[in-house]
Amino acid sequence: MAKHDSGGYRGAGLELLSKHGVSVGDSVKIATEDSETSGVLMPRYELASDDHIVVKLKSGYNIGIQVGRIKSITKLQKGEPATIAKAPEITEGKNLPKIALISTGGTIASKIDYRTGGVRAALSASELYASVPELATHASIDPEVLLSEYSENLKPEHWTMIAEKVAEKVRTGKYSGIVVSHGTDTMHYTAAALSFALQNLPIPVVLVGAQRSSDRPSSDAALNLLGATIFAIKSEYAGVFVAMHAGTSDDAVACHVGTRVRKNHTSRRDAFESIDVTPVALVRNGAVEMQEKSEIKLAKRRSDGNVDAKTKFDDRVALLKYHPGFDPKMIAHAAGAGYKAIILEGTGLGHVSKECFPALQKAVDAGVIVCMTSQCIWGRVRMTVYDTGRDLLGIGVIPLSDMISEAATVKAMWALANAKDAKKVMQESIANEISSSIPIEKA
Amino acid sequence: MAKHDSGGYRGAGLELLSKHGVSVGDSVKIATEDSETSGVLMPRYELASDDHIVVKLKSGYNIGIQVGRIKSITKLQKGEPATIAKAPEITEGKNLPKIALISTGGTIASKIDYRTGGVRAALSASELYASVPELATHASIDPEVLLSEYSENLKPEHWTMIAEKVAEKVRTGKYSGIVVSHGTDTMHYTAAALSFALQNLPIPVVLVGAQRSSDRPSSDAALNLLGATIFAIKSEYAGVFVAMHAGTSDDAVACHVGTRVRKNHTSRRDAFESIDVTPVALVRNGAVEMQEKSEIKLAKRRSDGNVDAKTKFDDRVALLKYHPGFDPKMIAHAAGAGYKAIILEGTGLGHVSKECFPALQKAVDAGVIVCMTSQCIWGRVRMTVYDTGRDLLGIGVIPLSDMISEAATVKAMWALANAKDAKKVMQESIANEISSSIPIEKA
Repeated sequence: MAKHDSGGYRGAGLELLSKHGVSVGDSVKIATEDSETSGVLMPRYELASDDHIVVKLKSGYNIGIQVGRIKSITKLQKGEPATIAKAPEITEGKNLPKIALISTGGTIASKIDYRTGGVRAALSASELYASVPELATHASIDPEVLLSEYSENLKPEHWTMIAEKVAEKVRTGKYSGIVVSHGTDTMHYTAAALSFALQNLPIPVVLVGAQRSSDRPSSDAALNLLGATIFAIKSEYAGVFVAMHAGTSDDAVACHVGTRVRKNHTSRRDAFESIDVTPVALVRNGAVEMQEKSEIKLAKRRSDGNVDAKTKFDDRVALLKYHPGFDPKMIAHAAGAGYKAIILEGTGLGHVSKECFPALQKAVDAGVIVCMTSQCIWGRVRMTVYDTGRDLLGIGVIPLSDMISEAATVKAMWALANAKDAKKVMQESIANEISSSIPIEKA
Repeated sequence: MAKHDSGGYRGAGLELLSKHGVSVGDSVKIATEDSETSGVLMPRYELASDDHIVVKLKSGYNIGIQVGRIKSITKLQKGEPATIAKAPEITEGKNLPKIALISTGGTIASKIDYRTGGVRAALSASELYASVPELATHASIDPEVLLSEYSENLKPEHWTMIAEKVAEKVRTGKYSGIVVSHGTDTMHYTAAALSFALQNLPIPVVLVGAQRSSDRPSSDAALNLLGATIFAIKSEYAGVFVAMHAGTSDDAVACHVGTRVRKNHTSRRDAFESIDVTPVALVRNGAVEMQEKSEIKLAKRRSDGNVDAKTKFDDRVALLKYHPGFDPKMIAHAAGAGYKAIILEGTGLGHVSKECFPALQKAVDAGVIVCMTSQCIWGRVRMTVYDTGRDLLGIGVIPLSDMISEAATVKAMWALANAKDAKKVMQESIANEISSSIPIEKA
């Protein structure tokens, strides 16, 4: 951190900081009419409004204070870059469990803009420890920058890259777990992709990101990264997970299984939710609390360094969301344009209008794999209940039970590239994407 | 109800009923090893398993009893069709508020299969009162069967029919409110359609349906219909609403504003949820409890019988959900195929990959209205935050704030058919579809 880093502040905020002679990294005491706050002056969050100063409290929690409310700023201690380099030295002597951290352009706690190019190519362990000092007490981290991309720009070929990089790290046998930092926009798609591509994993692979809202400058980046790392080290179970802020409290990180998680809010820190299942674990106070009531079946951690990697994806899959006024020609177009699979987001228990039947029949007859999910998001497709569902089954539409449409889209891309009988694979649960307690309807 | 109605029972259930000489409609006492239940024998629910007998308790709640557990069935009183006809006579002398009930093929409490043709063309008030006797104490109901269709088969032209029928009833000036029974699959789309098509309504128009799960024979049809009717009579506010089972308890119906509600579960009775706002009211114990914390602004009820009806829809609108591997050609296809508007369901704050930019630019340049919503469902699109969003704004993509994609799709169909400047209309909140407390970003 540069000594006189303006930290992204501008306007009234920057003026105030200059006036009081403080820079990002300094320990400060900020007084308003009714409060006094001590902590380290942080860079301005990209999503925060211009008129807030952000301070990191001793608890690790960041708060924003409105510029207009600030009566005085006192510098308690100058921020010294030298102090930042100390952490890794401490840890390296400790023989801590090793974690590989693969960065794809997502959230790293030391950045202002965690979403993008803000991730420096030379990201170092020391920078990490400086941002999240607690990390150094838990793990020895090997960071590697694989990609530096907004997650909405990630494509199936990036999933392949990430999967291969993870497999490479796993096979060294020297890591207790892998953490993959990722933009939140499509993190759940990548989590599903890794779940299918990397089967029989010996260790946990944990995706992590950060959400942040303009009205709450407090960031979840540090908490999430710490939670992901602790789960990666301490979990008795292997597999692909997403670790993000839990909904119920500000000190817990929820670990979701990679195929059953969805980003359900544009900005809230607890945006990621497990769908139809309980998150597999909470990480709180440095400990992993497995959630007994989760229906997810997990495999135990192993130490053999083996993984079945099938990392190719075929992106000729169309995801079509049905709605009244939906044009059946859209199905005809997808079938005619060379898509090998169509994932329908139907209504309710898995329906589309009868007007779509001829186009669907034509697609199925042409060898396109047509699957049904529900736009309700929660609950499961049940196509043996009503005429519409039974007709669709008769046409050859495959019901995907409680698989969410995002996971289904990814799975179809994976199955097309790796399975001899992709249609059959779509109906089997291979990575907890379908609840095992629910009988799968036959197409 | 026919005297010897098998009520949809078959197999072991039918055998048991025949053996004990009881028919649907009879008052019965059913004993199992550990319980004794008295009530009226109900028809078997379509979604219920074969091996349950359904009994309506005095409380109005229906329960299912497993055939295998039943030790004896005692007939307490024969069901008499004559008793059913009494209710309307009682009510007609009472000068109760008048409600028009328009059936579109959705749930009516007297049916086994509420979703479909089960709605008889000759649906009568007496049948209604027989099914939900409490209705007779609240309202004098004029039922009319307009449609008899699975809701997934309803199209924009049906919205026009329904809107015109509602407007006709409103203009008679004799109704306290209108109740529209509807299949649940697309009820929220129709609710949005009526919200845009029928502005400046003097009375409440309340859509109602029923969800039912195979493992819970207890139906929400009666509770929902009663709740919808009470809200239609007693609400101080006018507008379009959806009344369905509330999540928190089994005796409350939640009233959602028509543009902000979504079916969020395939089968649960509390599947319908207001998105980003609190439901406007709960109906409990025959009373309407307005929810103070709801952000929705409602107009007061009037007695003038006037309504601004603009009931046409143009279905040349494509709803496209973005995902990694999404093919920009899908946008080009939609633009080329004559769609006048494209509603994007982007990721996070409203993003699609940069690979889509050229196709989007071409669509915008060709005069297609391209709007952005978020597949997160909750939260709002914010496109001034990141490069991707700013680039999309630059291209001319219209950010729709917290409008849900379903309402946005319907609104685009309505705006294209009724507004001089559809693009401008998309950015204004005309039926609470955008939270008024949130500034709308400029495209």
